[in-house]
Amino acid sequence: MCRWIAYRGEVIPLERYVTEPAHSLVVQSLKALESTGSTNGDGFGLGWYGRPREPGLYREVRPAWSDENLQHLCRHIHSHLFFAHVRASTGTPTTRPNCHPFAHGRWLFMHNGQLGDWSLIRRRVEALIPDSIYGSRSGTTDSEAVFLAIVGSGADKNPIAATERTLAAITDMVHDSGTREPVRFTAALSDGENLYAFRYASDDTSNSLYFRQVGDSIVIVSEPLDMERAHWRPVPPNHAIVVSEGEKVHARPFLFDRRVAAE
Amino acid sequence: MCRWIAYRGEVIPLERYVTEPAHSLVVQSLKALESTGSTNGDGFGLGWYGRPREPGLYREVRPAWSDENLQHLCRHIHSHLFFAHVRASTGTPTTRPNCHPFAHGRWLFMHNGQLGDWSLIRRRVEALIPDSIYGSRSGTTDSEAVFLAIVGSGADKNPIAATERTLAAITDMVHDSGTREPVRFTAALSDGENLYAFRYASDDTSNSLYFRQVGDSIVIVSEPLDMERAHWRPVPPNHAIVVSEGEKVHARPFLFDRRVAAE
Amino acid sequence: MCRWIAYRGEVIPLERYVTEPAHSLVVQSLKALESTGSTNGDGFGLGWYGRPREPGLYREVRPAWSDENLQHLCRHIHSHLFFAHVRASTGTPTTRPNCHPFAHGRWLFMHNGQLGDWSLIRRRVEALIPDSIYGSRSGTTDSEAVFLAIVGSGADKNPIAATERTLAAITDMVHDSGTREPVRFTAALSDGENLYAFRYASDDTSNSLYFRQVGDSIVIVSEPLDMERAHWRPVPPNHAIVVSEGEKVHARPFLFDRRVAAE
Amino acid sequence: MCRWIAYRGEVIPLERYVTEPAHSLVVQSLKALESTGSTNGDGFGLGWYGRPREPGLYREVRPAWSDENLQHLCRHIHSHLFFAHVRASTGTPTTRPNCHPFAHGRWLFMHNGQLGDWSLIRRRVEALIPDSIYGSRSGTTDSEAVFLAIVGSGADKNPIAATERTLAAITDMVHDSGTREPVRFTAALSDGENLYAFRYASDDTSNSLYFRQVGDSIVIVSEPLDMERAHWRPVPPNHAIVVSEGEKVHARPFLFDRRVAAE
Repeated sequence: MCRWIAYRGEVIPLERYVTEPAHSLVVQSLKALESTGSTNGDGFGLGWYGRPREPGLYREVRPAWSDENLQHLCRHIHSHLFFAHVRASTGTPTTRPNCHPFAHGRWLFMHNGQLGDWSLIRRRVEALIPDSIYGSRSGTTDSEAVFLAIVGSGADKNPIAATERTLAAITDMVHDSGTREPVRFTAALSDGENLYAFRYASDDTSNSLYFRQVGDSIVIVSEPLDMERAHWRPVPPNHAIVVSEGEKVHARPFLFDRRVAAE
Repeated sequence: MCRWIAYRGEVIPLERYVTEPAHSLVVQSLKALESTGSTNGDGFGLGWYGRPREPGLYREVRPAWSDENLQHLCRHIHSHLFFAHVRASTGTPTTRPNCHPFAHGRWLFMHNGQLGDWSLIRRRVEALIPDSIYGSRSGTTDSEAVFLAIVGSGADKNPIAATERTLAAITDMVHDSGTREPVRFTAALSDGENLYAFRYASDDTSNSLYFRQVGDSIVIVSEPLDMERAHWRPVPPNHAIVVSEGEKVHARPFLFDRRVAAE
Repeated sequence: MCRWIAYRGEVIPLERYVTEPAHSLVVQSLKALESTGSTNGDGFGLGWYGRPREPGLYREVRPAWSDENLQHLCRHIHSHLFFAHVRASTGTPTTRPNCHPFAHGRWLFMHNGQLGDWSLIRRRVEALIPDSIYGSRSGTTDSEAVFLAIVGSGADKNPIAATERTLAAITDMVHDSGTREPVRFTAALSDGENLYAFRYASDDTSNSLYFRQVGDSIVIVSEPLDMERAHWRPVPPNHAIVVSEGEKVHARPFLFDRRVAAE
Repeated sequence: MCRWIAYRGEVIPLERYVTEPAHSLVVQSLKALESTGSTNGDGFGLGWYGRPREPGLYREVRPAWSDENLQHLCRHIHSHLFFAHVRASTGTPTTRPNCHPFAHGRWLFMHNGQLGDWSLIRRRVEALIPDSIYGSRSGTTDSEAVFLAIVGSGADKNPIAATERTLAAITDMVHDSGTREPVRFTAALSDGENLYAFRYASDDTSNSLYFRQVGDSIVIVSEPLDMERAHWRPVPPNHAIVVSEGEKVHARPFLFDRRVAAE
């Protein structure tokens, strides 16, 4: 089970949340708390927006905790919107293209969770990716496939609807595939302006997801970065939150009835 | 354009052909001669048969010339049948699963060449891979896809016919895709007992392929390992050669009419 | 704190102890038990003796648990005498030359522990390495330095005496350096024929070390590979054990008085 | 033989010189022209100054030409003063700590060349590094050692004099060591404000070094980045150039008599 953070707000160095806090993401790579597998040492990645419209990416197969480059980059790169992810593989190889976040055009995406039994539905999920985008599939993870399917499902017009359509289709596929493994989808998506975060499960056990407001800035995390638990608010299960310029962060139901239907 | 060697014969340490000769494969990783791109520094791999029925693999993303592990392994691993490959990427990322050779069950495969414009036919080639084998696709190269398609096309019964069927289908796909890029397929395949090598192109310009007999042993190479040119015999264009226990090496036509038809 | 195993006995595939047991070394790389830091993800290594007189080495910076090459090599490499090590760095970078085991000529060495405060004595320990051997220093760890000092102190004539001299000198250096950090030295050394293992500390808290006899074969480990605790006998603190052809394994005091003197 | 570029001037994205030009540094990693070894695939590095006083570093063991992270970082990182280096090893292992540039405090350094026969003088050069700085030695290259010796020789007070003292001492050591190999030192040094570049050899054959002025900005390179040869002016042999705020770039003799004396 992976760990991630997403940030949108005033321009800050990435180190503020990735490497500095007591329970920073890099600390979580070595020892996560709210997770079944406590080590997230199967690669990591940074994605951030800056002057070019397309996001920057730094992904590595080594564990985050021993990467000197990561320390340097987090100190030097400043951004108003960035993602960071430490990976615990559920089976796919530890390669850079399998590390999160994933980028396509101006879109950035990362994920923690599982899509039922991936081996049973891989081809059907890959078939959701339009031809025009399939060339961007440079790895073999379920997460990259679901991202490209979301982009191909009309994220440019309505990212939440595109995500909802894609996850509904995948939930059906998983159900049809005969596995008892659930869909667990705790993910972040951005176009460089707005930040979307999703907490969804096809059963009753969503992966954890929290957010915190600091002034006008928002941090969304798999698990709190410090012990001040009161500051971190959980995203409700089967809800999405939207962080946009000049608007209050708000949560809205995401495939909420889907879970009920599945019960 | 990649470089490779395949060996079948008496048990020898891999260093005999991979690292020791004047123009060894490791030397070719830094400077190949009969190749348009002279550097093959985008990863490499070893595959060999030993006591277990399934082949061993060592694949790395670093260039072969600077890998200390490779030196050690070539000195210590002895085999009667092994493959070695240095890679020059034609676009897919430099990851271990994208490095040759590829293994599936007892089968081993490696390739030098191109399948027209891969971006135009990727999905159709991947569709040739049966569901039961698709889980083995751990990278994104054309070479791995064509290998799994060959295995899925009946390699266990008749490896040359399965390869011929698959390459004929791919040649048609390339032709239909509207590109002018040719199919170039210089490849080795083995089940641990027999060694098959193929030199095929859909146009008149096959990649180079040579073989040499030393006693009862055979070495097949992209380009000669030493300057004794007379010892190295070219595999004829659009031919396959078969190396089997107790049989003379022989060449037989491989999609020979296909090339003629394409002209 | 690192974890390691050393084996001497009948020829077996390395997988027997490195990857197969319930609590194999690879499992320990993700979750060690008798250790303060439970993750050993800062690189790993194999060293083994085969046909060439000089040992083979395979060392990698990635965690052992996700390395596909390691799985292949452990299945295919057979040896009568091998070392395997998973590393938890105490500060030096995660590079291949900093991974154990270390080789020099026919000697192989690996270590778990610390030499007081390395930054205070590094130059003095490096000065113990003779000029003729100093060119072999390809990393920056304390462990490689102490190994080359042992080789330079006459390991060819009497390996235990050379190790004892070197550790006595280092214990004095640590004492003089003003730190309160102890010397902890749990190490294995071999010339390809005999296997030496050491459990030493300058204070009362030695790192754990166990061995087990299976027929005529001996396995020495940082912590037991399975739950059959009764089979694993601890090496007494400040003792060395020697495993030689045709001789019973025996333990002998190693700098035993040194510890008493320090109290 | 390595290739490098150094830049000081208006704030630009690193891609302007590292990845975009026809004969960019990344192109040179695959095929350098004014160099005996044409491939520089033994790792690479970026060093740059930004908001923190200490420079940022990104160093990798893979070849520059296939590193996707490098493309992203060069597009996103903007700087008024940066270094980039592609490495062709002269014997030391390909590890991150052996890749240029090297950083210590606010100092940044990179080098192309050789110090006679490094194996003969390594200990004596390492002995030039003061104890207070020796802890920064995280690799084993001659280049890192000479850098730390320069810092330790008073770079903070007078960087050119410190470099001159250090290179004079090393030239003497090389002479005394009995080798016929020369000292070749084509290097860049910076404190984040001023940029110093050196072209020195103990014999008549200095490695190439050029610079070009574009507006108020200066680029210094091992070999020109484009075919407009007229724009690139050679640094005279055994000269240093200094690039400072509000001053014209000027060249001054550097160990100029040393070369004459050696003849």
